[in-house]
Amino acid sequence: MGDLLPKGHHVVGLDIGGTKMMAVVYNHKFKPQGRCRKKSRSSKGAEPAEKRIVRVIREALDDAGNPAVSGIGIGSPGPLDPETGVIIDTPNLGWKDFPLAEIIADEFAVPVTVDNDVNVGTYGEWRFGRFSDCQHIVGVFPGTGIGAGIIIDGKLLHGFSGAAGEIGHMTLQIDGPLCGCGKRGCVEALASRIAIAKEVAALAAREDAPYVLRNCGTDISTTRSSAIARAIEAGDTMVEAVVRKAAYLVGIAVSNVVNILSPEVVILGGGLVEAMEKLYLEEVKRAMKEHAMPFLRKGVKIAPAQLGDDAIVLGGACMIAERLRYERSEHEEGPAPGA
Amino acid sequence: MGDLLPKGHHVVGLDIGGTKMMAVVYNHKFKPQGRCRKKSRSSKGAEPAEKRIVRVIREALDDAGNPAVSGIGIGSPGPLDPETGVIIDTPNLGWKDFPLAEIIADEFAVPVTVDNDVNVGTYGEWRFGRFSDCQHIVGVFPGTGIGAGIIIDGKLLHGFSGAAGEIGHMTLQIDGPLCGCGKRGCVEALASRIAIAKEVAALAAREDAPYVLRNCGTDISTTRSSAIARAIEAGDTMVEAVVRKAAYLVGIAVSNVVNILSPEVVILGGGLVEAMEKLYLEEVKRAMKEHAMPFLRKGVKIAPAQLGDDAIVLGGACMIAERLRYERSEHEEGPAPGA
Repeated sequence: MGDLLPKGHHVVGLDIGGTKMMAVVYNHKFKPQGRCRKKSRSSKGAEPAEKRIVRVIREALDDAGNPAVSGIGIGSPGPLDPETGVIIDTPNLGWKDFPLAEIIADEFAVPVTVDNDVNVGTYGEWRFGRFSDCQHIVGVFPGTGIGAGIIIDGKLLHGFSGAAGEIGHMTLQIDGPLCGCGKRGCVEALASRIAIAKEVAALAAREDAPYVLRNCGTDISTTRSSAIARAIEAGDTMVEAVVRKAAYLVGIAVSNVVNILSPEVVILGGGLVEAMEKLYLEEVKRAMKEHAMPFLRKGVKIAPAQLGDDAIVLGGACMIAERLRYERSEHEEGPAPGA
Repeated sequence: MGDLLPKGHHVVGLDIGGTKMMAVVYNHKFKPQGRCRKKSRSSKGAEPAEKRIVRVIREALDDAGNPAVSGIGIGSPGPLDPETGVIIDTPNLGWKDFPLAEIIADEFAVPVTVDNDVNVGTYGEWRFGRFSDCQHIVGVFPGTGIGAGIIIDGKLLHGFSGAAGEIGHMTLQIDGPLCGCGKRGCVEALASRIAIAKEVAALAAREDAPYVLRNCGTDISTTRSSAIARAIEAGDTMVEAVVRKAAYLVGIAVSNVVNILSPEVVILGGGLVEAMEKLYLEEVKRAMKEHAMPFLRKGVKIAPAQLGDDAIVLGGACMIAERLRYERSEHEEGPAPGA
């Protein structure tokens, strides 16, 4: 990554999540120089998300000793338009057709890129992980939703709509359980954290998951990934069966993606995978063996994400650095013919 | 396409099918100058497929008045390696690790490209159809198998294995009917021509499809797409229901692809679609409305293939012409730095 930014330059990576937001200031070697993390909504709910974003970036810059920055790269929940940096609809943050890139660019007077959080996270895992030499990568992040980032020939796939990678709403089971999107049998309806928590709470209610019943009760909202992992460690075998089934189903979805796109690497990340990495990857690999075509799965690596919470900030920092480098090279070579 | 080939140059497109093969000689404007079509296997079964291919090309050249040709572009059943032109395994033609491109290139002393027939057909439909301005295209060809060609950013997707686009073995129904590939619930097991013929023959056996019973009997192998279409026209309403169901299931598979790849255009071709275009497209569009995410299906065009049997020969001719142009431009500009 050494030649992406000129020596002495800094960029900011920003991760806007539904519950928390984080900004990190990086130097030209992508070493963090300062960071700030806040809840996405103020406790009184009065401050708009965009004001909090500006404060998070300012505090990260303060933490870094206020270096001049060359640009800001943002990962945000979608759907959004990566060309214009307009967020199309994120009710959780109160945004509709919201020109995020423009607002942040005006505030800090630097170029800003905005892309889908899953895309940015996949990009970070790719560029800073051990598969940066591979050109065809899929990143899958099962959590409350299940999203994917797709890299083809070394480029993020956005597609015609800008929103490619919606594997969470792949139909896997015709007439299956109802999904939040309104249709049936989506991977998310079958295997998201909520789909797992629902089954686990039912086990607790039937006294089939004693650890869960003692420690989390039967409220789905308290059944977080870490609690599920602890229940499995404590010997709640039916909870383990539920998680294995869900991971296997995500593995079928991954197999469908492998059959269609033929990636070289599939990276699995997010809360569920982090909490139960071994078990989760075992099931995805088993599903791959049973559902991806032999010729297409041959040599495909299934690997856990490695950057944890830093994937999106690092990915965002890298994306803006690459755009800046591209613009410098355009400038040096003069305008393109016909431009 | 005017500038692809210099004036006076000719190329050959070759379509190698499981049952027939066809070669067409094109001039620099891609107007056909000669053609030849033969069954893929000799009636005595003695002649190897590669010898027949050479004869088909020679006879097409004779038909065109034996112009000098600059290259040959081939669409062949897979799996194959498009980089080397080696056919990995096509038992039907007796090929295993078979260096097709090399053999044809040696025979005719010209450059040869080989790619998967579905890829080449999609490429032809794209370059010579009304969506040549679009950059994200998926071609789906339901027949005995169900394959897809994927064009992303104006380039055919091959992926890590070279064999991307296997949508026929997408799992759509966990624990569904057994597929020829050995797993369950693949689109092919649910909705291929054979899956339809099986149901139609059962209807005939139960006397629920009088036209089919009278005209085709209950033998699956005689229940071709054209016969199914005629039965529907003749009023076999349960046959129509079977075909609509199969087309709808292909539409769910297409929706999954739209959710993942976000194409601008989906082209549907092959025998089933050609025989029952209106009905087939209606069902695919209905499935799209119900299974593709609103943001991803917005503005997506679902269109029938337009080149019929010429898609693969035209696609092959175009692919070799593009390679020749690329090689000319490389030559003019000198070797790339570091080459």
